[in-house]
Amino acid sequence: MNKLFDKLFPICRSITGSGLRKTLEILSEYIPLKKFNVKTGTQVLNWTIPKEWRVREAWLKGPDGKKIVDFNNHNLHLLNYSTPINKKLPLEELKDHLHTIPNQPDAIPYVTSYYKRRWGFCLRHSTYEHLKPGKYHAYIDSELVEGELNYGHAILPGESNKEILISSYICHPSMANNELSGPIVAAFLYNRLSNWSKRRFTYRFVFAPETIGAISYLDRFGKELQENLYSGLILNCIGGRSDLSYKLSRQENSPIDNIVKHLFNVDDNTPEGKIRSFTPIYGSDERQYCSPGFNLPIGQMARLVYGYSEYHTSLDNKELMTIEALHHSVNELEQIIKALELNGYYINQYPYGEVKLDQYDLYPDINSKRYEEHFKDKVIKNRNQLDQVLTILNYSDGLHSLYQIVEDYNYNILELSHVIEILKSRGLLKGPYFKEEV
Amino acid sequence: MNKLFDKLFPICRSITGSGLRKTLEILSEYIPLKKFNVKTGTQVLNWTIPKEWRVREAWLKGPDGKKIVDFNNHNLHLLNYSTPINKKLPLEELKDHLHTIPNQPDAIPYVTSYYKRRWGFCLRHSTYEHLKPGKYHAYIDSELVEGELNYGHAILPGESNKEILISSYICHPSMANNELSGPIVAAFLYNRLSNWSKRRFTYRFVFAPETIGAISYLDRFGKELQENLYSGLILNCIGGRSDLSYKLSRQENSPIDNIVKHLFNVDDNTPEGKIRSFTPIYGSDERQYCSPGFNLPIGQMARLVYGYSEYHTSLDNKELMTIEALHHSVNELEQIIKALELNGYYINQYPYGEVKLDQYDLYPDINSKRYEEHFKDKVIKNRNQLDQVLTILNYSDGLHSLYQIVEDYNYNILELSHVIEILKSRGLLKGPYFKEEV
Amino acid sequence: MNKLFDKLFPICRSITGSGLRKTLEILSEYIPLKKFNVKTGTQVLNWTIPKEWRVREAWLKGPDGKKIVDFNNHNLHLLNYSTPINKKLPLEELKDHLHTIPNQPDAIPYVTSYYKRRWGFCLRHSTYEHLKPGKYHAYIDSELVEGELNYGHAILPGESNKEILISSYICHPSMANNELSGPIVAAFLYNRLSNWSKRRFTYRFVFAPETIGAISYLDRFGKELQENLYSGLILNCIGGRSDLSYKLSRQENSPIDNIVKHLFNVDDNTPEGKIRSFTPIYGSDERQYCSPGFNLPIGQMARLVYGYSEYHTSLDNKELMTIEALHHSVNELEQIIKALELNGYYINQYPYGEVKLDQYDLYPDINSKRYEEHFKDKVIKNRNQLDQVLTILNYSDGLHSLYQIVEDYNYNILELSHVIEILKSRGLLKGPYFKEEV
Repeated sequence: MNKLFDKLFPICRSITGSGLRKTLEILSEYIPLKKFNVKTGTQVLNWTIPKEWRVREAWLKGPDGKKIVDFNNHNLHLLNYSTPINKKLPLEELKDHLHTIPNQPDAIPYVTSYYKRRWGFCLRHSTYEHLKPGKYHAYIDSELVEGELNYGHAILPGESNKEILISSYICHPSMANNELSGPIVAAFLYNRLSNWSKRRFTYRFVFAPETIGAISYLDRFGKELQENLYSGLILNCIGGRSDLSYKLSRQENSPIDNIVKHLFNVDDNTPEGKIRSFTPIYGSDERQYCSPGFNLPIGQMARLVYGYSEYHTSLDNKELMTIEALHHSVNELEQIIKALELNGYYINQYPYGEVKLDQYDLYPDINSKRYEEHFKDKVIKNRNQLDQVLTILNYSDGLHSLYQIVEDYNYNILELSHVIEILKSRGLLKGPYFKEEV
Repeated sequence: MNKLFDKLFPICRSITGSGLRKTLEILSEYIPLKKFNVKTGTQVLNWTIPKEWRVREAWLKGPDGKKIVDFNNHNLHLLNYSTPINKKLPLEELKDHLHTIPNQPDAIPYVTSYYKRRWGFCLRHSTYEHLKPGKYHAYIDSELVEGELNYGHAILPGESNKEILISSYICHPSMANNELSGPIVAAFLYNRLSNWSKRRFTYRFVFAPETIGAISYLDRFGKELQENLYSGLILNCIGGRSDLSYKLSRQENSPIDNIVKHLFNVDDNTPEGKIRSFTPIYGSDERQYCSPGFNLPIGQMARLVYGYSEYHTSLDNKELMTIEALHHSVNELEQIIKALELNGYYINQYPYGEVKLDQYDLYPDINSKRYEEHFKDKVIKNRNQLDQVLTILNYSDGLHSLYQIVEDYNYNILELSHVIEILKSRGLLKGPYFKEEV
Repeated sequence: MNKLFDKLFPICRSITGSGLRKTLEILSEYIPLKKFNVKTGTQVLNWTIPKEWRVREAWLKGPDGKKIVDFNNHNLHLLNYSTPINKKLPLEELKDHLHTIPNQPDAIPYVTSYYKRRWGFCLRHSTYEHLKPGKYHAYIDSELVEGELNYGHAILPGESNKEILISSYICHPSMANNELSGPIVAAFLYNRLSNWSKRRFTYRFVFAPETIGAISYLDRFGKELQENLYSGLILNCIGGRSDLSYKLSRQENSPIDNIVKHLFNVDDNTPEGKIRSFTPIYGSDERQYCSPGFNLPIGQMARLVYGYSEYHTSLDNKELMTIEALHHSVNELEQIIKALELNGYYINQYPYGEVKLDQYDLYPDINSKRYEEHFKDKVIKNRNQLDQVLTILNYSDGLHSLYQIVEDYNYNILELSHVIEILKSRGLLKGPYFKEEV
């Protein structure tokens, strides 16, 4: 992870351009990405692909001829999507093109102007405050050209055509938590899942620029997702020294919503985290996936959520994000996905009366108050497991999902997998099925 | 209002008779009422129109020949629907025909005996206590004759055939809050709405005697209301120094129920008030409109609710009611009706992905942490309005009414009208529609 | 009750055998039971009828030749379903066949091994502790033979084919609360209901061994129950110095669930008790009736619920159970059943507008503040009864059951029967109907 981070961090990314393409190439070393492009001027949903932004060099020199900021030192110094300029101009005129954050004097702000043509520099307010009157030289060797927008995806097949989508975005320049954490965690999660011996779902991993990239993706694959998508997650700001934080899908009771709520609550062996309501006001690409026409069952997972003070500045760096947090995220996401795989509708094969469990070696053959006698040398090791057996069999009627059962009976869904395997191996239980199958 | 009150107050009204007709005539000076009558003996639903009550003179003289009570001084002195009498009788015999309120010695009670023939007088208990033994002369020149029951309505057309009904009753003699407040507020509300440049709904204003009048109205127009009624309000006891008080319709979630609950709660710019549950036990004409066969979406609005100590006595006068309270009621009812007009199902015309709002001049063209830069010279003035835009567009899917959106996102429905107008003018939004239209 | 208890208590019952048959014969003296049997080896649902257990004599003699325990003294001394033995063996070897409860030294435990062949004795731990080394003589004259399992039922017809099932079990040997309380209460409840002048429901009383008996019953009558059953109760542990305790059916909102919840809560004139959730983990025959294939609307009623310290020991005796508690249970169950009979969907025959109640002698003929005048010489005695009339008529629309009405308006359902009778006698109300009839 560390290596991947260090390769990706210095690249000047934007919603189009060579930095975006370079990022997709590096990710392809870790995941078998299939790459796509959309030409400038193409209509995608209610949007149009803009010209591609290319930048070679950019700096600002002071009256003394010394460079004050240089794109080569930190790519945040250049207003993202800046038009070209080569002009000497007095400080007062220059100030309209300078962006700072007065109450964060040491932070270079991240400023974009994708759809309105502007040129500009971003700098520390501490630098800005010491600018002296005089003639400045602003030099930006950039261009906006007919080009393309790029994105990629990787499909990991499973037993079912039903899909789980994992998406993150790759348009942010040199910032860490927002947003290298998402793509890196996605890449490593892909590898984790690809090593599973079997997968119930098909997994779709998407890497695209934020907003316009997601819109391009939906323009092409939206119909397919509406047909096949079971649930999904946008990964975003998923580093930092915080517990997980989950934003519900617009449906607010989609499979991923329910499973995450369950795992955050049920006990200490599952990920801890906070639930945020759905909102169309703030957020990431779930705003597109959850637009009313698509309304897909996709939530958003974060740790240190956008809005923290270092957000959208040069202070959003590796120390803030931490590689360790990304490891936690991969582990916790794997648990969540395991729970999604386990959930569903099971069917008790002998629903009339209780199953005669002792015939299947699943019930004590003596009944007394001496509990220790009951489970001697049995497959079922204790009363708790027996309770799980009885509960699962009673509610596996095609009307209760496993999620509903564990919520009603306060079990950790992941702990039931042992007993479910036993019941399936004895021919007593089949599943999991999807709702429309039962 | 004051003038109308002073004209109506002295009239001796009942469920039939000349006082009722006179009241309809006076109201006709303010509203273009269409008048209806129903003959004595006509079957209306489970009821029959009684004989018409006419009264010319009524007094009670003491042993000394002096008048103790006189109908000419206060029409409450006469038992409403009293049969005629001309008889001298001793005090002990007379007492069976005298009505007082012992614990309100200065109040003349309002007593009615519409359907059982009785004669009687109502008087202050302070007067009653000083009656001396002796022969009294009871004289009531009234008659119960084949006649008619009268009521009227006025229809104010709107863009839709869907109707909002406003009803109050006109059968109470000289009392103020109960019930001249209702008819007067209804008359002035009619004039307010008739001045609107456009109305979505058609408005139906009904003035009839309580209970038997409402039953007569439903007998004739009930079917029509079942077809066209969107929602409605019974106005009753709508004066006094109290906030509004709303009794839910029997459905308890009809449009008017939801809108009133919303406005009472949401913020300080909307009417304040209390919500009462629906009950068939006490109340006014909503008992008829909300009988199980009709079950119309009609609530009841009051201020100083029946049951106050002056209720049904001569102490229910103009000082208790106040003309100022009636003005408040008209203003607050207009706000409620504006919210009903605004509510409904809106449709985002570009539901796939977010709308590219900057193309419509509705979104900042720069993205930075410096919020003041975002809304410079924009149609959308601040983040709050932008949030409203995003929220309305995301949920205008034909499944969420505006009421549901404002409840979920804690907006004041009336404050959204500005942004809705902008979105409609840009071609981004259509509506409001009724549920059955989407 | 006392007599019946004393006859039944000494019998050595099990899930098969002569004790079971004897018990059915004695119960037949109180109820016209129809008896059924199922042969050893018959498949019933997922189970098979085991061999019949017969026992003649059983004792254990110490090294000194004296009897330590004797089946004739207390039938709990013999492991229920013990295989035969006639063997002298040293204490150490014997111990594998002895069952005690160390922390209840004076209790003989109740131990069963129906489906695994074992022999054994149960004894007080205080006896066990004083056993001395030496040769012991274990003698059990029992056999497991091709035979049958027995059960019985009695049907008490009513106006409707819809049934209410009352079931208890008859396989426990000499213990009182668990389980002679259930069969005795059921028998006396049968007699109570058979004396009613009319019954809306048909009542089905079932007496069978627990689990395998219920499974046999469902194997034969399950389909019939699925067609006709309205609701039902398993009676179990229904003695003891406790309030009633009700375990909800698996549906958790079946008619009996709702009525019991209502009566436990509403006021002091109805049975007190606690509600337990449904669980498939612990319980009695509701585990079979509420298995997912049947999912019948059957709850379980108890007083001193299984799990008490005397449970499944010789300390569960008549003093613990008390005959008085059984009397309470019969009375309280009768109230619950009366409420079930009263509940249902009523139909107001004049649903348009309010009924003109004074025409039916059900409304005051004068309206004043003097309430005492209103109800003089009326059928309706007070405002509370008038409120009941208005409430019942307003909600008797075929959509609200009486249960829903009393829950919304906080009436005791049983107290409404007076007013309902009056309304029915006046032709204003019909019912109760079942949901599918309206």
